[in-house]
Amino acid sequence: MPRLLPTIQERLLRLKGLLSQLGTARGTDRVKAELSSQRAEDLAEGMARMEPEDAAALLQAMDPIQAGNVMVELPTDTAREIVDELSDEVLASYLDALPMDDAIDLAEEVGDERFESLLEVIPAEDAAEIRRLMAYPEDSVGRLMTERYFWAKPDMTIKQILADLRKAGEEKYEQVNDIYVVDDAHQLLGVTSLRRVLRVPQSTEVAEIMRVDPVTVHATDDEESAARTMARYGFYALPVLDESGKLVGIFTGDDAQTILREAETEDVLAVGGVTGDAEPYYALNPWSLYKRRFPWLIALFVAETLTGAVMRHYGKDTEVGVPPLMFFLPLILGAGGNSGAQVTTTITRALALDEVKTGDWLAVMGKEFVVALMIGASLGLLGFARAFFGWSTGMGLSLVVGLALPVVVLWATTIGSILPIGAKRLGFDPAVMSAPFITTFVDATGLIIYFEIARRLLG
Amino acid sequence: MPRLLPTIQERLLRLKGLLSQLGTARGTDRVKAELSSQRAEDLAEGMARMEPEDAAALLQAMDPIQAGNVMVELPTDTAREIVDELSDEVLASYLDALPMDDAIDLAEEVGDERFESLLEVIPAEDAAEIRRLMAYPEDSVGRLMTERYFWAKPDMTIKQILADLRKAGEEKYEQVNDIYVVDDAHQLLGVTSLRRVLRVPQSTEVAEIMRVDPVTVHATDDEESAARTMARYGFYALPVLDESGKLVGIFTGDDAQTILREAETEDVLAVGGVTGDAEPYYALNPWSLYKRRFPWLIALFVAETLTGAVMRHYGKDTEVGVPPLMFFLPLILGAGGNSGAQVTTTITRALALDEVKTGDWLAVMGKEFVVALMIGASLGLLGFARAFFGWSTGMGLSLVVGLALPVVVLWATTIGSILPIGAKRLGFDPAVMSAPFITTFVDATGLIIYFEIARRLLG
Repeated sequence: MPRLLPTIQERLLRLKGLLSQLGTARGTDRVKAELSSQRAEDLAEGMARMEPEDAAALLQAMDPIQAGNVMVELPTDTAREIVDELSDEVLASYLDALPMDDAIDLAEEVGDERFESLLEVIPAEDAAEIRRLMAYPEDSVGRLMTERYFWAKPDMTIKQILADLRKAGEEKYEQVNDIYVVDDAHQLLGVTSLRRVLRVPQSTEVAEIMRVDPVTVHATDDEESAARTMARYGFYALPVLDESGKLVGIFTGDDAQTILREAETEDVLAVGGVTGDAEPYYALNPWSLYKRRFPWLIALFVAETLTGAVMRHYGKDTEVGVPPLMFFLPLILGAGGNSGAQVTTTITRALALDEVKTGDWLAVMGKEFVVALMIGASLGLLGFARAFFGWSTGMGLSLVVGLALPVVVLWATTIGSILPIGAKRLGFDPAVMSAPFITTFVDATGLIIYFEIARRLLG
Repeated sequence: MPRLLPTIQERLLRLKGLLSQLGTARGTDRVKAELSSQRAEDLAEGMARMEPEDAAALLQAMDPIQAGNVMVELPTDTAREIVDELSDEVLASYLDALPMDDAIDLAEEVGDERFESLLEVIPAEDAAEIRRLMAYPEDSVGRLMTERYFWAKPDMTIKQILADLRKAGEEKYEQVNDIYVVDDAHQLLGVTSLRRVLRVPQSTEVAEIMRVDPVTVHATDDEESAARTMARYGFYALPVLDESGKLVGIFTGDDAQTILREAETEDVLAVGGVTGDAEPYYALNPWSLYKRRFPWLIALFVAETLTGAVMRHYGKDTEVGVPPLMFFLPLILGAGGNSGAQVTTTITRALALDEVKTGDWLAVMGKEFVVALMIGASLGLLGFARAFFGWSTGMGLSLVVGLALPVVVLWATTIGSILPIGAKRLGFDPAVMSAPFITTFVDATGLIIYFEIARRLLG
């Protein structure tokens, strides 16, 4: 039964089909059944591409546990829009159904005030646990840990442990592969595995089979470094201690995987000069993409003032002799190189994470064209203003700069978006179309654009 | 018991202390005990910084299971050197002790021929399993999977399953958290978890509690995409099928974590123009670093020929008018920007992975200085040759180019290595000192260097 992952388009079509069946009682039952057989991650991917009201309708056809899980997997912006479509009652039911560490995720999407009012509605014990976790600093392990782990006293026998596990409800523990041994003050003494427990005689006390020097993290540790510690040792969960060494929770591998994936995405994008939280490419509209790229290009603008000043300085120096047209060369090349690097880094990452398929090339280029127009227009205006007003360059050359910038940015963007997709299509690793490759490629062509515009306008 | 991770330096000192105690029978026993309490990942990190013969001596003081695990964690180049110090008999004992999927890792380090002769020595069944896995394509899941998983027929009861698990030797299964249900042809029917098994009555048949639509991967799938699938769904293992849907192994989370970490490192470095396999920074000598960076800089050189040609073309065009000194501007700026971006990307990644601490700044700068000398000298010679012989530029300007290139590269490297470490020291995210930041910063200062050299030599 080889299982082919459907494309995002296929998933979307299937969800839209389901949507149209909602409304009649029989249709709704059928939709419910179909939805319940699907995974939250897959549903979230399709729903991120639907209208918020449609996604909200589908969400309400699911049972609250599944709906909550889908909410957690949705890109933040999408989830925010959908949340606006849902009543407090519905949201509270999702919140209640989620594991506490995931429930916290909803706070960001729902907004602090509304989240606070939802906490009033859910059982007091759950609300208290959520508030406890939320008291830890942002991006700390404390916010991501779960208090639902299995712990034992050192003199408990395997027989007792197995009996306890058997009795526990499905939701009581988030994972039971590791068993944490604590003393009366809940200080962590050691860890053992369920696998080991199963293999020793039932009368064994757990202290005899525990490992006494476990790798631990602290509740206030940075989540990324804790996730790296887990990955380093190949563990699937780590015990979380407070300042005094008391066990306060466990940090599980599924959260660590998400943290690392997002941190890696942010690191890769940063190298390409793109800022912002990791969000899937398909969930970002041109305005979001603009906001992630423009800060860096503005910083570049300021920095290239320095370069321009150097050029002007040596321009006056007759021994070296730099003509005014050359003053703007680093700015033009920098704008083209950097905007191209941003696009190619973004697309290459989206391809690596399967957020974009090669078949999506036309949609990608269309979206990137809009972003390039916005960035090009902004840079062109800024460039013209600085040349004309700032450096008192003549109108002619100022116009050349103001026109060359958007054209070079559009060109760099086109190259930067099509080359990685083309490379993947041809079976190469898109990473070979790296940012420096694009930058260098755009250098030569950017020069031609600049000089040609100059020749026509100044000639 | 808050546990502070020791620095690499502390680890190294401790290992050297242990080394000096080897030799006497009592000393060796003490060292053995001390080593056995440490984790393979930590030992490998320290040993990668020792002389190969010292590392080999420590390795031989460990029991074969631990020694094998340490070997697998060592950087490839280090492992290759250590392997040369070890006898076939010792190596075979490591190979025999390792899980089969890890044993394959040794093939790369030992060399094909010697590995083949080692396979003759270990038990035939293990050798056959290793040969089976090695028949799968490089970088495929098949090479990383383990055949040691727990499977059951659909009509097996929970009681039988638990009895089987209890009887199994420690090494028989790599993990038992997931239980795979197969039919008589070993086609995968479904999956259930040990946790679920523990919670149902002992007379239940496993088919009643299995999930019938598990996420699977194929043995020939790319390892990175399989690891991403696992991370996407937050699983800790995935069943691996052959073309016909037969279960042939499982792909476990510890391997997936390693694959992803290395793939992410390679992706980040590629954006910065650095090629090659992921290896820890401390295991790379200047020559290795040179080899990872020079290919890209050479590609840049070729590409900037295009830019230079454009400049020369418009230089003859009297309306635009580009003086010869300007022809080399993109090359100088590109060389500085790109070599700076390579260094800052490398160091930022090493900081993120904790392979370099801020306290290592002097060692890092020393190593980078050597690399920069090598790269600068190579580029300077190439630049001079191209200017003088290729473009028949006069001796004066050719010398300016040949001198400016190494100076700019040295400067860019210094900035590129110190800024991320400084940022981290001051409590900022080193990623803000991103490649484009360095590139832009180096642009202005690179210009000054170029113009000053020109003024002195040509003035």
